[in-house]
Amino acid sequence: MKIDLTFTSSSFDELQLRDKNIVVIDVLRASTTVTVALANGAREIIPVGSIESAVKISGSLFGEVTLRGGERNGRIIEGFNLGNSPLEYGEATVRGKSIIFCTTNGSVAMTKSRYARSLVIGSFVNLGTVVKFMEEKNEDFLLLCAGRLNTIGQFSLEDAVCAGMMVQRLEAGGNAKVELTDASRAALALYKAHGRSILKLLKNCEHGEYLAEIGFESDLKLCADVDTVPVLPMLSGTVIKLRRDEQRPENADPTAAGRTSGV
Amino acid sequence: MKIDLTFTSSSFDELQLRDKNIVVIDVLRASTTVTVALANGAREIIPVGSIESAVKISGSLFGEVTLRGGERNGRIIEGFNLGNSPLEYGEATVRGKSIIFCTTNGSVAMTKSRYARSLVIGSFVNLGTVVKFMEEKNEDFLLLCAGRLNTIGQFSLEDAVCAGMMVQRLEAGGNAKVELTDASRAALALYKAHGRSILKLLKNCEHGEYLAEIGFESDLKLCADVDTVPVLPMLSGTVIKLRRDEQRPENADPTAAGRTSGV
Repeated sequence: MKIDLTFTSSSFDELQLRDKNIVVIDVLRASTTVTVALANGAREIIPVGSIESAVKISGSLFGEVTLRGGERNGRIIEGFNLGNSPLEYGEATVRGKSIIFCTTNGSVAMTKSRYARSLVIGSFVNLGTVVKFMEEKNEDFLLLCAGRLNTIGQFSLEDAVCAGMMVQRLEAGGNAKVELTDASRAALALYKAHGRSILKLLKNCEHGEYLAEIGFESDLKLCADVDTVPVLPMLSGTVIKLRRDEQRPENADPTAAGRTSGV
Repeated sequence: MKIDLTFTSSSFDELQLRDKNIVVIDVLRASTTVTVALANGAREIIPVGSIESAVKISGSLFGEVTLRGGERNGRIIEGFNLGNSPLEYGEATVRGKSIIFCTTNGSVAMTKSRYARSLVIGSFVNLGTVVKFMEEKNEDFLLLCAGRLNTIGQFSLEDAVCAGMMVQRLEAGGNAKVELTDASRAALALYKAHGRSILKLLKNCEHGEYLAEIGFESDLKLCADVDTVPVLPMLSGTVIKLRRDEQRPENADPTAAGRTSGV
């Protein structure tokens, strides 16, 4: 299996991503938030590329089963129910709900990947589950780091290191012959350089520093906790749901959500 | 001085690069070739973004003082005088000539940077000269890795490592307070991981492997030789020339070009 990688998603259009197996990585915070929300019983995430799309879509849905979540500049969007902090997506809030989700980078990357052969959402909190899925599938993958828009660099160190940790686990697993590209080799080297303390990485990277500044430092700790939310968010039609074998029935005991319950 | 960096140039337009101090890095091979050509007495390099532009511009120039150089898929463009191998740009060929230069990534990045505050061309062969210029200028810089078009990754390990080596030299020099971004920190980590043997890096990176396959393995050795062509190609109006204090008079002794003569 060949593992390719891109450090930014902004320059790609849907057709370039068509028919690929894609892992969308936006550690701070879209990937983590989607993973937590679904683990806490959200029915589905509907990613959209713009606020306009979010408003348009939510107009045709029933208010009591639909929430609008997302951010601009890290803060909740006016008129939305939720921001982009995974801590806001606790079970009491999201259980059984459809969530229209609009963020600057992550939801855009998810939307662009709508014609992918397969699309899963990856972060540190569900890293092992993503790697297991890749090993089982045993096909070529593209690790799509969301990166950042509105800056010339468009590179996010935390996404690159997370992708590199996936590459390291795949190589260490030895279940598949892993072929790397320049970009996935680079990510692996970045994981080796910065992966010793993920929390320290998140505190020192540009976007982590910004989030701490605007009051979301507690998000960093949650986002840094490797393998604490072992579920697999996956594109199904135009929405993101847990992989079928992981979905809980609507009337399951809420306490069964395990340690991710109520975060 | 803040050192920002981008791993690919394809997603930027001219206005985003306006008023910045830019180092264009395309190790294999545009940056190296421009540096060698000017060191060997070429009068100027005229970078263009497309073959159409090259043909249009050369129609209005005198044939005997103008050459067309460049590549598509690594090979010379039909009707051009030279390809993109620095070995073709020896003194006997280029001395006193204006060279219209069209490559897939490097010349496009140079063209996009036409409204920069300053633009210099960086590669391993002139790395120390570029770093000295940055230290003297002591302003913010953007290291613009050309990357690759026509592939989804668009990331070139050799450009990233070259940029990282510049960052390392700037930090080691201690002449200026260097502030890094996520991207320039990542490049530094990549230099530390892959910089022990530049030649090995160039032989093992994707584009280096491709160039060796199509017969340009000898270019890799030249491109890997750190600080062997200590000159500074610099944007001057719409053309690239040596920094003024480095320009040799037209009738200088050809043998004075030193070890870069006749490569």
